[in-house]
Amino acid sequence: MALTDVSRPTDVAMLTDLYELTMAQGLWENGKLEERDCFTAFYRDKPFGSAYAVMCGTSDLPDLVENLRFTDEDIDYLASLFAPAGGRMFNPAFLEYLRGFRAHVDIDAVAEGDLVFPREPMVRVTGPALECQLLETALLNTIGFQTLAATKTARVVAAAKGRPVAEFGLRRAQGPDGGMAVARASYVAGAASTSNVLAGRKYGIPVFGTHAHSWVMSFDTELEAFRAFAKSMPNNCTLLIDTYDVREGIENAITVAKEMEARGERLSAIRIDSGDLAKLSAYVRDRMDAEGLGYVKISVSNDLDEYTIQSLLSQGAPIDSFGVGTKLATCYDQPALGGVYKLTARLEDGCDEWTPVVKLSEQPYKRTIPGRQHIRRFMDEAGSPVCDMIYDEMYMEGEGTSRGTSVVSVDDAALVADVSGLSSREVMVPIVRDGHAVAPRESVELARTRCREALDSLDDVYKRFLYPQSYMVGMESGLSRLRDELVRERMAETAPTLMWKKRG
Amino acid sequence: MALTDVSRPTDVAMLTDLYELTMAQGLWENGKLEERDCFTAFYRDKPFGSAYAVMCGTSDLPDLVENLRFTDEDIDYLASLFAPAGGRMFNPAFLEYLRGFRAHVDIDAVAEGDLVFPREPMVRVTGPALECQLLETALLNTIGFQTLAATKTARVVAAAKGRPVAEFGLRRAQGPDGGMAVARASYVAGAASTSNVLAGRKYGIPVFGTHAHSWVMSFDTELEAFRAFAKSMPNNCTLLIDTYDVREGIENAITVAKEMEARGERLSAIRIDSGDLAKLSAYVRDRMDAEGLGYVKISVSNDLDEYTIQSLLSQGAPIDSFGVGTKLATCYDQPALGGVYKLTARLEDGCDEWTPVVKLSEQPYKRTIPGRQHIRRFMDEAGSPVCDMIYDEMYMEGEGTSRGTSVVSVDDAALVADVSGLSSREVMVPIVRDGHAVAPRESVELARTRCREALDSLDDVYKRFLYPQSYMVGMESGLSRLRDELVRERMAETAPTLMWKKRG
Repeated sequence: MALTDVSRPTDVAMLTDLYELTMAQGLWENGKLEERDCFTAFYRDKPFGSAYAVMCGTSDLPDLVENLRFTDEDIDYLASLFAPAGGRMFNPAFLEYLRGFRAHVDIDAVAEGDLVFPREPMVRVTGPALECQLLETALLNTIGFQTLAATKTARVVAAAKGRPVAEFGLRRAQGPDGGMAVARASYVAGAASTSNVLAGRKYGIPVFGTHAHSWVMSFDTELEAFRAFAKSMPNNCTLLIDTYDVREGIENAITVAKEMEARGERLSAIRIDSGDLAKLSAYVRDRMDAEGLGYVKISVSNDLDEYTIQSLLSQGAPIDSFGVGTKLATCYDQPALGGVYKLTARLEDGCDEWTPVVKLSEQPYKRTIPGRQHIRRFMDEAGSPVCDMIYDEMYMEGEGTSRGTSVVSVDDAALVADVSGLSSREVMVPIVRDGHAVAPRESVELARTRCREALDSLDDVYKRFLYPQSYMVGMESGLSRLRDELVRERMAETAPTLMWKKRG
Repeated sequence: MALTDVSRPTDVAMLTDLYELTMAQGLWENGKLEERDCFTAFYRDKPFGSAYAVMCGTSDLPDLVENLRFTDEDIDYLASLFAPAGGRMFNPAFLEYLRGFRAHVDIDAVAEGDLVFPREPMVRVTGPALECQLLETALLNTIGFQTLAATKTARVVAAAKGRPVAEFGLRRAQGPDGGMAVARASYVAGAASTSNVLAGRKYGIPVFGTHAHSWVMSFDTELEAFRAFAKSMPNNCTLLIDTYDVREGIENAITVAKEMEARGERLSAIRIDSGDLAKLSAYVRDRMDAEGLGYVKISVSNDLDEYTIQSLLSQGAPIDSFGVGTKLATCYDQPALGGVYKLTARLEDGCDEWTPVVKLSEQPYKRTIPGRQHIRRFMDEAGSPVCDMIYDEMYMEGEGTSRGTSVVSVDDAALVADVSGLSSREVMVPIVRDGHAVAPRESVELARTRCREALDSLDDVYKRFLYPQSYMVGMESGLSRLRDELVRERMAETAPTLMWKKRG
């Protein structure tokens, strides 16, 4: 890591798992340079138990593709590697090929801030097999954590019921990028501000912060510390009152608030960062109200997440805003989205028709969905999403207006839904064509608006924390039939897996 | 985030929580520029329940300090910010001061790879108050995750009992830095290799990898895919056999292994990435042994951590190496170390004696330890650590050889140990003096050796996963006495906290 050591744009090609490069060499050596693949990135399991995820990271994808280049330093390094069994790991001719390499893929993806559900494509990459392979690691690294952090934030913001949530997690993130990613993703998903100044400067996100315990400890008394802070920052004055004792702290804050009033200023808020926040906030509210300081707000922090915020508010805690750090920046209760990137179709050199492919597994839920997948989202009369259809244009059933009207659940093949008559929209949008962005980078505000609208339109049954309704994601009936056939075909080729002898 | 958008070295100053800058302005406006502070970074709770942590990130600290500078762009941004209650957030004269700012702090820290225990100083920063404050966020961001990832790796490596562990987590990390940090930290803590090519190039860490499921799916049959891979990379050939069915996959791998033998080559290993790894590895071992392929190794992956590895080996699974990704790169079961950075002593302008300070809390275990802290590690006759003493030279009890011989546990004031007669060493080393590195950046190999030696010398009772013995960390008796006095003093000033009225 190290701040002086962070990746340059040209490092994208090397920010990859070694096997992407050995496979690329294999494709090159096996004459597969003209073969085209279609890879699909998706996640399988509900993050934090959430029925939905908030897509994030999409706007970084064009940079990945445009910067997928190998420097001389990269080539020299790869040339220096030995294979485990001796000899050079890479063929010099292949490395020469990499020297002039440029990516020409097409990418379609769910737009930043839109909702995405388990098993459906988040990103679809189509292009030369070798290029698709080289993008895998950086692509998953880019969309996985950002989507996870945006999803976590959406939950925290929902729990706060309109009260502002400030993102405070930079110190807990995995280095600078982690801190930048969580600031941006949380703003997309509804956080009001971040403490991260660099994120403020780079992304135009509102920044927030006042003082820490160390400020209070820098003075002989807490009262002296509060007075000094109020004098220095009368228009941005939130006093942290728990350095020694909240009951003493609030009296000092009240004293300073009244001194500020006498100068025509107003104490903005007090903050509590430890202890029982329900009890302490109620006590502090009572004391301030009794002193005519009803306008001074109460802000709290300390390992908060959606559950603690929900609990505090259900107890009637008179809290006006929340600072959320550790649990958001680390996505504490599920720190990996588990996104995967699977080959779902290929176009062999000389063929003019794509071949859908499927991966099996001892774990049936790891079977992939084949094809060049799109998502169509169906809405009820009020415009609220009710069902997503994964489809491949090549395999759709029906004709005319009855084309693509039947959906088979990805979770339960017995669950078939008729979506004819419902309004719909396409969810995936073109991002990259022939290796270049199709549009300038979108603003974070636009993604934020898209997210708010998407979440507003989603029924509450999908948004509750405890046993949310699963959102129906289905395969268009033709795609479902295709998948069944491919699975059966593959299984017929392999030995039955059920008979294992007891060993030893 | 975004790879084209990563922090430049000059961004250190802005990679901070806003309150560090508002506090800095407060210190500046309150004439505290000449005041010197001592801040101590430490963690409170055992990560993953581990008695120890493996320090990591130390070698990045000089860069943080040397690059703590504000660019014109930074100053312009800060000047553009409005305070919540109106008016500019920052004083233009303060921003002019920042324009020429250079840090002159001293830093002492636990060396990279050495062990560090709860509550004792990981890093001590001494210098102008404002500088200490500006370093907080970036410092915690740097040492927190790296130490956590190194600690997780040490556990995984211990579970593997000498079998190589490859770090595969790049795709699950929080962006490029996260991936780089986990690769480096895991190598320090004993991983044999990483899949991260950029980490290989930048840090000289061994890289490892062969092919993915997509390789197999790129061919019409698995056998064809295996043959092509073996042909292309005969000296780096590990075949992934679970794309469709492991029982079919191993037969195809055996066929290819024999073809390789006929060419005078050797299949290096097979890898299994799904399903029941105990059952499948045993089956595969039997099949290969029956075919005279005893030399072909078995590598496994799929959401492994120290517990799954321990379980597999205790079942006798014939596994030769492990690939560990998600659970390591995200530190899944505890994704935050929870490191804090607290003011522990200050030297007021014009004084010649440091004043130790203490922070209280409703949560007593959050009370800080005061003073300018050092760590002395005591060893038994075999050289195995038995107790760490936190001390402040100013407050040590005793004289001559009896100076600093009594230690009071930080967890239990009734537990007092006599450490006289034990050999000892100082744990913290000088890293930065007057804002500059005291030595060139240490190699990752040196830190790795230090870690191995430290872990080897540590008694197994501290290393087991289930209920490890807590390692004794104590305050030197003089420091303990000082802390008791400071806590009593502060508590006497505040109202008793026990009496809360039932509300409503």
